[in-house]
Amino acid sequence: MKKKILFICALSFYSVSWSQSSNAKSAEINAKVSELISKMTLEEKVGQMTQITVTIFEKQGAKGVFDIEKLKNGIQTHHIGSILNVPNPGAPTLQKWQETMNVISGEAIKTRLKIPVLYGIDAIHGASYTTGATLFPQQIGLAATFNTELVKRSAQISAYETRASSIPWVFSPDLDFPRNPAWSRMWESFGEDAYLSSQMAVALVDGFEGDNNVGSKYSVASCMKHYIGYGSTTTGKDRTPSIIPERLLRQYDLTIYQAAIKAGAKSVMVSSGEINGTPVHASKHLLTDILKNELGFSGVIVTDWKDIIYLHTRHKVAETQREAVRMAVMAGIDMSMVPEDYSFYTLLLDLVQKGEVPMSRIDDAVSRILKMKFELNLFQNTVANLKDYPKFGSAEHIEEAYKTAAESITLLKNDKSVLPLDKNEKILVTGATANSMKYLNGGWSYTWQGENSDTYAADKFTILEAFQNKLGEENVLYTKGADLEIEDDGEIQKAVDLAKNASKIVLCLGEKNYTETPGDISDLYMSKSQIKLALALAKLNKPIVLVLNEGRPRLISDFADHMSAVLQCYLPGNEGARALVDILYGDVNPSGRLPYNYPKYPNSLEKYNRKYTESISEGEQNDDAKYEKSYSPQFEFGTGLSYTTFKYSNLKIDKAEISSSDDVNVSVTVTNSGSKAGKETVLLYLSDNFATITPEFKSLKRFQKINLAPNESKTVTFTLNQKDLQFVNNDLKWVAEKGTFTIRVADLNQDFLLK
Amino acid sequence: MKKKILFICALSFYSVSWSQSSNAKSAEINAKVSELISKMTLEEKVGQMTQITVTIFEKQGAKGVFDIEKLKNGIQTHHIGSILNVPNPGAPTLQKWQETMNVISGEAIKTRLKIPVLYGIDAIHGASYTTGATLFPQQIGLAATFNTELVKRSAQISAYETRASSIPWVFSPDLDFPRNPAWSRMWESFGEDAYLSSQMAVALVDGFEGDNNVGSKYSVASCMKHYIGYGSTTTGKDRTPSIIPERLLRQYDLTIYQAAIKAGAKSVMVSSGEINGTPVHASKHLLTDILKNELGFSGVIVTDWKDIIYLHTRHKVAETQREAVRMAVMAGIDMSMVPEDYSFYTLLLDLVQKGEVPMSRIDDAVSRILKMKFELNLFQNTVANLKDYPKFGSAEHIEEAYKTAAESITLLKNDKSVLPLDKNEKILVTGATANSMKYLNGGWSYTWQGENSDTYAADKFTILEAFQNKLGEENVLYTKGADLEIEDDGEIQKAVDLAKNASKIVLCLGEKNYTETPGDISDLYMSKSQIKLALALAKLNKPIVLVLNEGRPRLISDFADHMSAVLQCYLPGNEGARALVDILYGDVNPSGRLPYNYPKYPNSLEKYNRKYTESISEGEQNDDAKYEKSYSPQFEFGTGLSYTTFKYSNLKIDKAEISSSDDVNVSVTVTNSGSKAGKETVLLYLSDNFATITPEFKSLKRFQKINLAPNESKTVTFTLNQKDLQFVNNDLKWVAEKGTFTIRVADLNQDFLLK
Repeated sequence: MKKKILFICALSFYSVSWSQSSNAKSAEINAKVSELISKMTLEEKVGQMTQITVTIFEKQGAKGVFDIEKLKNGIQTHHIGSILNVPNPGAPTLQKWQETMNVISGEAIKTRLKIPVLYGIDAIHGASYTTGATLFPQQIGLAATFNTELVKRSAQISAYETRASSIPWVFSPDLDFPRNPAWSRMWESFGEDAYLSSQMAVALVDGFEGDNNVGSKYSVASCMKHYIGYGSTTTGKDRTPSIIPERLLRQYDLTIYQAAIKAGAKSVMVSSGEINGTPVHASKHLLTDILKNELGFSGVIVTDWKDIIYLHTRHKVAETQREAVRMAVMAGIDMSMVPEDYSFYTLLLDLVQKGEVPMSRIDDAVSRILKMKFELNLFQNTVANLKDYPKFGSAEHIEEAYKTAAESITLLKNDKSVLPLDKNEKILVTGATANSMKYLNGGWSYTWQGENSDTYAADKFTILEAFQNKLGEENVLYTKGADLEIEDDGEIQKAVDLAKNASKIVLCLGEKNYTETPGDISDLYMSKSQIKLALALAKLNKPIVLVLNEGRPRLISDFADHMSAVLQCYLPGNEGARALVDILYGDVNPSGRLPYNYPKYPNSLEKYNRKYTESISEGEQNDDAKYEKSYSPQFEFGTGLSYTTFKYSNLKIDKAEISSSDDVNVSVTVTNSGSKAGKETVLLYLSDNFATITPEFKSLKRFQKINLAPNESKTVTFTLNQKDLQFVNNDLKWVAEKGTFTIRVADLNQDFLLK
Repeated sequence: MKKKILFICALSFYSVSWSQSSNAKSAEINAKVSELISKMTLEEKVGQMTQITVTIFEKQGAKGVFDIEKLKNGIQTHHIGSILNVPNPGAPTLQKWQETMNVISGEAIKTRLKIPVLYGIDAIHGASYTTGATLFPQQIGLAATFNTELVKRSAQISAYETRASSIPWVFSPDLDFPRNPAWSRMWESFGEDAYLSSQMAVALVDGFEGDNNVGSKYSVASCMKHYIGYGSTTTGKDRTPSIIPERLLRQYDLTIYQAAIKAGAKSVMVSSGEINGTPVHASKHLLTDILKNELGFSGVIVTDWKDIIYLHTRHKVAETQREAVRMAVMAGIDMSMVPEDYSFYTLLLDLVQKGEVPMSRIDDAVSRILKMKFELNLFQNTVANLKDYPKFGSAEHIEEAYKTAAESITLLKNDKSVLPLDKNEKILVTGATANSMKYLNGGWSYTWQGENSDTYAADKFTILEAFQNKLGEENVLYTKGADLEIEDDGEIQKAVDLAKNASKIVLCLGEKNYTETPGDISDLYMSKSQIKLALALAKLNKPIVLVLNEGRPRLISDFADHMSAVLQCYLPGNEGARALVDILYGDVNPSGRLPYNYPKYPNSLEKYNRKYTESISEGEQNDDAKYEKSYSPQFEFGTGLSYTTFKYSNLKIDKAEISSSDDVNVSVTVTNSGSKAGKETVLLYLSDNFATITPEFKSLKRFQKINLAPNESKTVTFTLNQKDLQFVNNDLKWVAEKGTFTIRVADLNQDFLLK
């Protein structure tokens, strides 16, 4: 109960509003922007559109130390508007960040118009480039909580700790909609459902931007990424081509952006990929026609790393670098993450001077950038006063990270209630991921690839350490058992020998730390060395609890049947091991749900919201259906067990027939029929039974997470509106068609008719 | 040399023309059609559009025997225009087919207007539903020959033998463009290249239809299938959704249909799948706007099996069966393969009577059907006179099937020239596919799934038998070694033991016989039982020649490095084993080339004509490129080794710069630099170096297969036209853009500039 009160207090603390009336403020900022632009030279404008990586300003041979002449060349000579990334050797302390920002703003203040430099950072699961920051589960884990309040709170804390690092702009949230689970950034997304992703996106944007109070010293500007289609490459390899007809972009991907834009997201980063042969950085249709004009996005469009240059060198849609700059700016880019030279600045200057890019386009871009700087209050508040941030890395923040991890970890299998464990049982902890912080944090942790988590997070518990902490070091058996990649029969034998002294085995398997191209794989199966360990241990016929630490669902079908329990940890962050072990021992009742289909085989990657032709549908085991595909993921989207049981009853719809203006009110009663208190996410799915675009078998429309004491019942209500009944047709319009729909909640269902 | 002369004679024999002037004949047929239609009742018209499977006319309890009352009900009461499929128990003899057709035409002649019934059959690699017919390699093998003359000849023979079976209409060629190699009908296509597929499509249409002389008693009407996008499902499972933007449909899939339509293809079968949410059977855009109107297709559009019914029961785009019929007919369907009842007839009749389907649509459909019947000369020539077909299943035809198989089999690896084998070496032949005709023929052989090939083709050689025939039974060691699926360590041990007595091992691995849904797989790896055998044999350190009998590239990366030689047989048909063994012993020099990329890993299914972002491109091993994807198929498209060596030299382009009306003339000299005569397919690839739609790394534009004696040289010339430089842009127009292009032939390349 105490925790609950604390939580509410903290929330209200962060939601205090500094803002004037939103309209008045907006008008005031627009006036300031206009005034400033009217004073600017072309060079100053093009400079604002230029973003440079901080490391090119370093002294040669002195990592992390500014060469002031180089910085002057950037800020004064080239008028650059933005800097990104982290000084060498990475993950500065708060003090070091403050010093860095003091130097940068010291240069900016010396410029003619004293426009502050906008600093942007990949703060991905907390202020992940700051030593000592609170690291939350990665985004896929946030999705698994199905708890938007908790997720919003994680963003509030990330914003607080990022602003404490004097940084006002984070390249988060990730709104990618992955269609191939092998993609190396799957874990940076919210999984395979667009509705869940939208809800989580809004929670993160609201959390980062302080509920439309981005000028606060506890808020940061968010950056939706990677607009659009980035997460859906055909082969699953990072930055390779996507094929997505516009109808599908609108049905799924765009809805997530739309929700985040409505929540006020201040900026967007563009996908490095191509869709249907057009690199998104070169697509006026996607950037200007749809994003700026149709969706009314009024923020800043920034490129991803070097992506204008890549239009020439990789995508080969531009015959020269100059043409690449013209293409991207005319497509609608406002800021170029150049980021290692001034080529963009020089070429764009020339393009404008020769009339190939109109000044109106430049003014549009610069207005957006300046507006963001005013909104962020950067002209007043450039460098953090560390006294304002007493809670950086505090116990209060750590407790939130722990709670988030605890609600993300997903119990996928628990045969014969092998879990929770008993403290008196002898446990063998083994597996490649059991004793390192790298596999709990993944990429974007202190460094790009997250390879130094064990150094930076040395005070945090690995899984093994969390066991030792709970049971005492002498009560836990441990051996590594397997390397992530290298097969070693000797290691396996050690694990097998040690297992003979244990009554149960906790087997920790997973993936290396990675992101982007270094995380590309060609085979979704779990690595052979780990499969071999699992199969060797399985032969002992002792209960094995499989703990997965992985960014994407690596296939376990070779040994899954031999596992008594399976827990998906995703990448739970610095507090993940504590949360896991508390779940394993029943101190926390698990409540995560899988935000994607966990496939069984590499060439069978069906989504939960498949079409009828992809699976036998309920009640249709007739001759036609027999011919259909067998649909059998290892674990389906939404799977998530508890140590208690929940019963669903009394599913009701308020009307059996509705007109095209009616809402649909749904209620269902959920009862904790077990003996432990527990949290349950109620998932409401809708099926459109017939439609002129082949309908999905079902799709998620609402969810709500509730807490139930044993024997307690709650009635959960949902309201569906007409938009929920609609789909995008071939004319790219959202329409609902007359006919029957089916509401599905757990094992219950009810039909209604749209007249 | 003798063979060559025979070949030419045969060709001219078949190309004798019975036709009057084409225009005059066409006008005459149109007049006949109009006259006939003017006499028809609505019932008779709707009946023409109805296709029924022959087995529903069988006597209850008497398979393969007509119940005349049932047949009357079809032909007289319901006026049905077409029958398909094969009477039970399958694969009739010529005589039995003749009897069947006599009964059917006997009923047709009793109808008011005496319109003949059009019989259609899945004659897929020969008259594959007729006992004793000549069975060629399946289509993927035809593609691998890169020899259009040979392929055309196979279709001429198939046409001859199908007409000998009194059947005038074959559901072939397959023009599917598979984007996922795991698809169960991959082998029914021409592989992954649209240009190769187009050339092969034309060869088959010309061969089937006698070079626009479909009325001949040696020709059949072809049926392009499955229009369109059927072979490109996202998950690779048969009849599941495809996602293909129209730009890509036009860039690739449609070009194949366009070529076949230009060659005169008389009919088309519709894809059972959906594209972007619209089942093709319900797509007016694809069937009427594009196929009939834009491409000017004037033939018959027939559905696939039960697919109008499936619009309601599987795709769920039609709320009732009646609505499904309306949708499909209004989309442009001319004939419904209903095929097991008269629901289509009854519902369509009602729809027309109530004005929901206009008579103009019905008349369009019936005109097309009647035109085809007149063109096929069915009013005169309904049942074959067996005396006209002395060459059915003859040595001459068999020899052609052998030659086609011999040119299709593709040598993919031959380390240290382990091949050809020496007759004096002791050879172990082993593997699940070594001793059955099922794995040489695959599906669509005598029966749908091809499970009875060993009975029907008992006189043909399995691989083992071909070895025994060549070397004497006592000189060949054999054991099965492995089942296709069931793991059996005892069997493996037998093979290992036997291998100790052999100097080389011929290991035959592959797949079961299958087509359509029964061939669906979830894992592209070769089956575990077979991998286990390969790895066990590899431990012996003896040279292993891997022989692949498979419809799609099952992954062999687990053991490929241990194989000294690899041969891809595809599904080479009844003469395949003889051809294979002749190649293994050097009596035939292999000359097939792989018509697809053979992937190495299940989640790395890149095509050869990948985009630059998918692979490191030649000469670009710089910093940018290092970041790119590694592209490393097991074997690349076009791979095909020979026992001799070919040197390429003197690649020339006639102009370094061309205008937008110029052709490009390319020549290259090829020399047989080895000591054996051999055939070489010269492949010409083009790269568009920059384009506004991201260009492909390279794409095949021309090929020519030549024959070279040792030390002989030939200069091959190709002419590229402007169309070859074009791609489909976002406005769905074919355009060429100014800039440099690179011609690539073998390891040579030359640039030219389009001004």
